Amino acid sequence: MPTLRELQQRMREREISAGSLLDDSLHSIQRDAQEDGAIYVSVDQPAARQAADTCDALRIRDYVPSALAGLPVSVKDLFDVKGQVTSAGSRVLRDAPSASRDSVAISRLRDAGAVFVGRTNMSEFAYSGLGVNPHYGTPHNPHDRTRVVGGSSSGAAVSVARGHAAWGLGTDTGGSLRIPAAFCGLTAFKPTARRVPLDGVIPLAAAFDSVGAIAASVDCCVIADGILSAQQLNSAPRALGKLRLGVDYRHVVDESDDDVRRAFDRAIGLLREAGVTIVPFDFPELDEALAHAPQPGITAAQAWSWHRRHVEESAHLYDPRVLTRLEKGRSILAADYIDLIGVRERFVAAARRRLSAFDAWLMPTVACVPPLMAPLESDDEAFFAANAAVLRNPSIVNLMDGCALTTPCHSKGELPVGLSIVGSSLADAKVLSIGRSVEALLRENGGVPQGFLIGSSKNL
Amino acid sequence: MPTLRELQQRMREREISAGSLLDDSLHSIQRDAQEDGAIYVSVDQPAARQAADTCDALRIRDYVPSALAGLPVSVKDLFDVKGQVTSAGSRVLRDAPSASRDSVAISRLRDAGAVFVGRTNMSEFAYSGLGVNPHYGTPHNPHDRTRVVGGSSSGAAVSVARGHAAWGLGTDTGGSLRIPAAFCGLTAFKPTARRVPLDGVIPLAAAFDSVGAIAASVDCCVIADGILSAQQLNSAPRALGKLRLGVDYRHVVDESDDDVRRAFDRAIGLLREAGVTIVPFDFPELDEALAHAPQPGITAAQAWSWHRRHVEESAHLYDPRVLTRLEKGRSILAADYIDLIGVRERFVAAARRRLSAFDAWLMPTVACVPPLMAPLESDDEAFFAANAAVLRNPSIVNLMDGCALTTPCHSKGELPVGLSIVGSSLADAKVLSIGRSVEALLRENGGVPQGFLIGSSKNL
Repeated sequence: MPTLRELQQRMREREISAGSLLDDSLHSIQRDAQEDGAIYVSVDQPAARQAADTCDALRIRDYVPSALAGLPVSVKDLFDVKGQVTSAGSRVLRDAPSASRDSVAISRLRDAGAVFVGRTNMSEFAYSGLGVNPHYGTPHNPHDRTRVVGGSSSGAAVSVARGHAAWGLGTDTGGSLRIPAAFCGLTAFKPTARRVPLDGVIPLAAAFDSVGAIAASVDCCVIADGILSAQQLNSAPRALGKLRLGVDYRHVVDESDDDVRRAFDRAIGLLREAGVTIVPFDFPELDEALAHAPQPGITAAQAWSWHRRHVEESAHLYDPRVLTRLEKGRSILAADYIDLIGVRERFVAAARRRLSAFDAWLMPTVACVPPLMAPLESDDEAFFAANAAVLRNPSIVNLMDGCALTTPCHSKGELPVGLSIVGSSLADAKVLSIGRSVEALLRENGGVPQGFLIGSSKNL
Repeated sequence: MPTLRELQQRMREREISAGSLLDDSLHSIQRDAQEDGAIYVSVDQPAARQAADTCDALRIRDYVPSALAGLPVSVKDLFDVKGQVTSAGSRVLRDAPSASRDSVAISRLRDAGAVFVGRTNMSEFAYSGLGVNPHYGTPHNPHDRTRVVGGSSSGAAVSVARGHAAWGLGTDTGGSLRIPAAFCGLTAFKPTARRVPLDGVIPLAAAFDSVGAIAASVDCCVIADGILSAQQLNSAPRALGKLRLGVDYRHVVDESDDDVRRAFDRAIGLLREAGVTIVPFDFPELDEALAHAPQPGITAAQAWSWHRRHVEESAHLYDPRVLTRLEKGRSILAADYIDLIGVRERFVAAARRRLSAFDAWLMPTVACVPPLMAPLESDDEAFFAANAAVLRNPSIVNLMDGCALTTPCHSKGELPVGLSIVGSSLADAKVLSIGRSVEALLRENGGVPQGFLIGSSKNL
């Protein structure tokens, strides 16, 4: 899969254009529409065409506003795009008025010359980690059609894995970028939440919501993050021999499934061989925090405060599983909520102290490989159990107000597994730097081939 | 009343010492104990003596850690001081274990060489603006013994007005520094809340709680703020002829009582004559915000989350009026609380936009002169009405996450009236700068004489 820089290079050399990339994109979207389930909620071809044409016209005059210029990006159905309906993968908002202005993220991408190819499907209102959507259908995992793709940014991941988009714009409240990226063999970066404004994004839980990219490489994530945050980070690779990386086996490794454990241990082995000092550590403050379940409580309360007006009017239009989770927020008392915010604040401080003992924290992005789809469709208990299992690791990063990069660490022929490099609040540059070095090492040693290419079928 | 700098100068010249200032302080505390009501909850003479002696011993070696060194400061009974009980003016905590460590504010003051002379009385748990305390008794207003002194930092203001302390340490959640300062003819500065850490301070409402000083002048407030915030601001005076100061008559001036209105108008007249451009403005976002009553709601919810464990065990020990206010937080739902936090966040942003049209906002610190005490003691309705009236103006500053300085603007023979210079979040330096210029102008034109002096009765 070509990186954003490679695509830019080919556009510079007039091998391809924004228009030809868009042709490819729309062609492959159509090709996969039947086979791969509902990847998109809507595709606005005329708007995409206009953006691509503008980009090409400007490029002829040597005006290239950013490294994203002319590249097709998919947009999770949670972001306001002027003139489009933001439905959040729901029926509740399917007939809502179209947005009167762009969200901040979209506005920054538009200024950067991005071409929006389609609004990607998602778990309804971003409130689950498996990607199942009863209204629009569920995208299939591109590595194994019988397995879930992960969520909530399900369509975002498939749009990249299938080569419809150079990268996908998504959000992450408990793992919603990283889970589908890991399940699709892709890379994703969840920044420290406050680095990217949430204006014009339908919230799930403002305490945790983060805006980021699913893409083909760390470098692609760095480029997207630079535009989204309006902040260029220094993410030069780090010398592996000087790195100290922490591993907490008890909380996030020991109860992984065999495939994940094998891939994770192999990655740790490679890192050790490359000179990385692996620092096993324990994290007792995590036990203390989790005992109060601050994340489910805070999320339920914040989600309910936003959703209650819709639930009152249109409860019957909700995915019953999402409604079940939302309803948990109805009776939470302010005093209990405030206590949970306190638990969370203390955990953020504790995590900063703990993580200061090494350069970053390594964990399997998800504790399991993508679960099989069929058992989850009919069985609520199995669904909620799988959902909790999938969210367990990545949601810790949101709880600690941290940042994390997931990069594939499985080998050819295996189901996808993601390795997460986790940092505390505002350690984004360090995490991306380390990510570059770790990605390079893993790619040298059995890196993951990816099957689909954007920009390969046509030349200018 | 001598300023902190004047006292330092006299210590430098060996006219006075920390020891002699402490003698004065303890002597006047004793003198006023009968006459002026319960100004202190406790006085730790041995600890104060040790601090003063240490200061004097160091000064002989020319070690003077700060402009506060050796100066007696009173401490509101809300701050942890190692070895002392923090009772917050309550019976509930009167027998609590003594603090095992200093609060951050106290630790910074200790490092700066401050001498803590006594723990000042306050409205129980800081939850009213009048200063009435049924457990320890209520300090009398030094200008008129029949009137309230204001609160919640009631003893703090009297300790300064009576010359027991060079300045008083207090907190301000809705006006608790500024109300008693205005009612006692003193100066107080409520900084932007996050500039001074709250660790080791019993909270009322973490969203609004701010740590600051009541003192004799703007310069004294600047010195105390520099130590408390560990941040020296550039507060050089501003040329009055270049200042643009906003006035919103409708919200905070029109319904003032006659004495306040007269003093305020006179101050505005003097400022105009001195070349200040007065900018009348309207503030519709304030109406929108107040329609949801975010401040009482957020305060009640946050206060309840802290107090509920104590209320469950010892409701009978609370001031019934405080308990009434606390109980309002019991049934607030998380979703409603989250909505109020949203109202508040939008108001903070609106206030920043509104206030960007001028250099600062002028308002009467309190809409009335100190109410008579007697009618409030027995009549709950009169008490709550007076409390609401007193909090109305200053609490807007907490709601907007702003900062404010109050400086006396009444004339000799009049009841005290405070003029507030208000800035938005982190405009602290600008507010203090303007405060210096406004104070100088008001003092030149009938400045307020103050009756009591610390450090006057003894020389070395």
